[in-house]
Amino acid sequence: MTADQARQPDEAGRRSPDEADRYSRAALSILTEPGDAVLGALLRSVPPKEILDIVMSECPDPGSVLGRVREGDGGPGAEKNSGGIVSRAVADRAIERWRARRRDVPPPGRLELWEQAGFRIVCPEEPEWPTQLDDLGDARPVALWLSGTTNLRFACLHSVSVVGSRAATAYGSHVATELSAELAGLGWTVISGGAFGVDACAHRGALAVGGCTVAVLASGLSFGYPRSNSDLFAAIAHTGVMVSECPPDRAPTRPGFLVRNRVIAALSRGTLVVEAALRSGALNTARHARELNRPVMAVPGPITSEQSAGCHELIMQSQAACVTGARDIIELVAPLGAAANGSARQPAIPADDLDPVTASVLRAVAQRSGRGPATIATLAGVDLDTALRCLGLLGAAGYVERCDQGWRARKTN
Amino acid sequence: MTADQARQPDEAGRRSPDEADRYSRAALSILTEPGDAVLGALLRSVPPKEILDIVMSECPDPGSVLGRVREGDGGPGAEKNSGGIVSRAVADRAIERWRARRRDVPPPGRLELWEQAGFRIVCPEEPEWPTQLDDLGDARPVALWLSGTTNLRFACLHSVSVVGSRAATAYGSHVATELSAELAGLGWTVISGGAFGVDACAHRGALAVGGCTVAVLASGLSFGYPRSNSDLFAAIAHTGVMVSECPPDRAPTRPGFLVRNRVIAALSRGTLVVEAALRSGALNTARHARELNRPVMAVPGPITSEQSAGCHELIMQSQAACVTGARDIIELVAPLGAAANGSARQPAIPADDLDPVTASVLRAVAQRSGRGPATIATLAGVDLDTALRCLGLLGAAGYVERCDQGWRARKTN
Repeated sequence: MTADQARQPDEAGRRSPDEADRYSRAALSILTEPGDAVLGALLRSVPPKEILDIVMSECPDPGSVLGRVREGDGGPGAEKNSGGIVSRAVADRAIERWRARRRDVPPPGRLELWEQAGFRIVCPEEPEWPTQLDDLGDARPVALWLSGTTNLRFACLHSVSVVGSRAATAYGSHVATELSAELAGLGWTVISGGAFGVDACAHRGALAVGGCTVAVLASGLSFGYPRSNSDLFAAIAHTGVMVSECPPDRAPTRPGFLVRNRVIAALSRGTLVVEAALRSGALNTARHARELNRPVMAVPGPITSEQSAGCHELIMQSQAACVTGARDIIELVAPLGAAANGSARQPAIPADDLDPVTASVLRAVAQRSGRGPATIATLAGVDLDTALRCLGLLGAAGYVERCDQGWRARKTN
Repeated sequence: MTADQARQPDEAGRRSPDEADRYSRAALSILTEPGDAVLGALLRSVPPKEILDIVMSECPDPGSVLGRVREGDGGPGAEKNSGGIVSRAVADRAIERWRARRRDVPPPGRLELWEQAGFRIVCPEEPEWPTQLDDLGDARPVALWLSGTTNLRFACLHSVSVVGSRAATAYGSHVATELSAELAGLGWTVISGGAFGVDACAHRGALAVGGCTVAVLASGLSFGYPRSNSDLFAAIAHTGVMVSECPPDRAPTRPGFLVRNRVIAALSRGTLVVEAALRSGALNTARHARELNRPVMAVPGPITSEQSAGCHELIMQSQAACVTGARDIIELVAPLGAAANGSARQPAIPADDLDPVTASVLRAVAQRSGRGPATIATLAGVDLDTALRCLGLLGAAGYVERCDQGWRARKTN
């Protein structure tokens, strides 16, 4: 495919970025920290390749580029939510900062090696880009690094973020697992942060019922923090998607966890806090969701438990809805007019957009009675793992639903 | 005191009923079931003695009396909330119903015997009548039977009803006890229904810190249902108040529990539901409180517990505020302008209204440092039990507060 072809608008009217743009965004994700609002502001008016060229040049002269940027006064807060406005001084300082990592940027060939190793880069304007991330404004990720073959945009179309304390109690672990399994069983993708405690239980609950789950890490994907969850991450990559804003080998930073939380909040239709102490990072994810006008939900617990105090505070301050089951959650996050049980829901993506393998798995699912995944795999001519992965995706997209016998096609109006 | 003297308005502008009225109301409480709205409607325009005379007469001729009653159409709902309007046919049927119990009405001498046995009758327009019960309209109790020497009106001035499931879990029992102890320690009277489970824990929590507690039974007070709580009832009568709308020896009826709940809701400034299954009677008390425009509060619990499902439903339907501690509760029920810690609160009753014994106990309490109850008893020249009873009452009225050393005078503005 030539660069010109790649720039043709796709069905959704989006242009695919050319290879140079993709490489530039990957390099910028190496040069910068996630959520850099100055970079976001510059990218509104300057192509990524031009920004990269300035940063990488031996004698940078940003003047010509910055002439095209709307100038702000550079006063306090100018680096945050600047809405594409950035002062010359702020931009100069940022470029100086980014130059410190010039040596970390690999030649384009290394990018291909990473892609061969199972990582792929998804950029804004690509078909797989989850457009809800655009709500983050200048803090939108410059690119996402993914592993797993499931399509991220499709997986997140009907999704709920399930977050909470790393030091979850037995109660919190139980509730996170059960609610996530219920949500996944009803065709909702469970998004979380891959951490210990509530996050891990949320992912495992979705995996347990063959559902779709997405983990957004604060580290790079091959660094895979926390490392003792590596088996879990492998299982998620197998049937869902692993996501990071950082290049694969980057270690997490303390502020990076909070910055990462905005992606968890922005990817899904709503955020559920299962357990949170009064200063838990999960409350930060809830705040991001609220700022993005996405529903925030909290699970009540014993008032004697410190790990429920944050949930109760959210409920008492009317910052979160009190929920006690998956149906409550779906009622709050489902698109208007969609019944909680999803029976009246139209598939979220047109059948023509499905890749050939997923389409063949969909054809193998029976209309009325359920079929087991092994039967479906045989009929579709794919292996069992592929069938399970496609079924999770088809469930999230509203085509199929779980039943006692396995999976069946979902009735739509 | 002559009947004429008793009829002089007291400081609050209320007339004390004469002995004949008191006897008539006691007799009417024997002839009728609690919450009889027809009786309530008649009592708006006809003195209790005249109604009693008609019911007790061999050949009743209610015509002359009912001529003074505003007539309704007697249609559906006429017996409920009729606001003093009652049709002739409805009144006739009610009088016929009440006549069935004529033989249960004892001569006035029996009333004195009951009073000698420690029960007393408090009627509307008496100084001890809790005027907040007037919010019940025609369903206002015709009279209250009390045991315990604490003044009911004073005890209920700053009070919270704490109700919940009889089949309380260990969690519910713990929370009911702790919150009630905290409320009582902050000078709030705890009102409940004397039942097993949450009710009993609420009373015991208040008693444990020497606080004031009021039990409103669905049976008569000497019947004392549930009977295995008789030790608890004795302890409540000792330092708080036992209350019933029924004459002392009456057994409870199934509908009587629900009718009794309106008194629990009306006596206090707000109702707290600690634990309640989806069909718990505690939700009925909450409904009464809501209809009376009193705050309703609910304690969250594990979503895995059926005994918290009713609380969560109240919270999710915005019918109750989610609360997790005594401070939350007091913030919702305290009079406007009163700080949650009560420091700016004026005493709820003038010092001149205190009986001489209570006033002497108040004088024995130190202004700044705390004093133990034994010291206070010695200084006041009363026994320890009397001192504790008076301190509970003085706490509820806003004069004193508990501190590490015992009790101290409360600062007021």
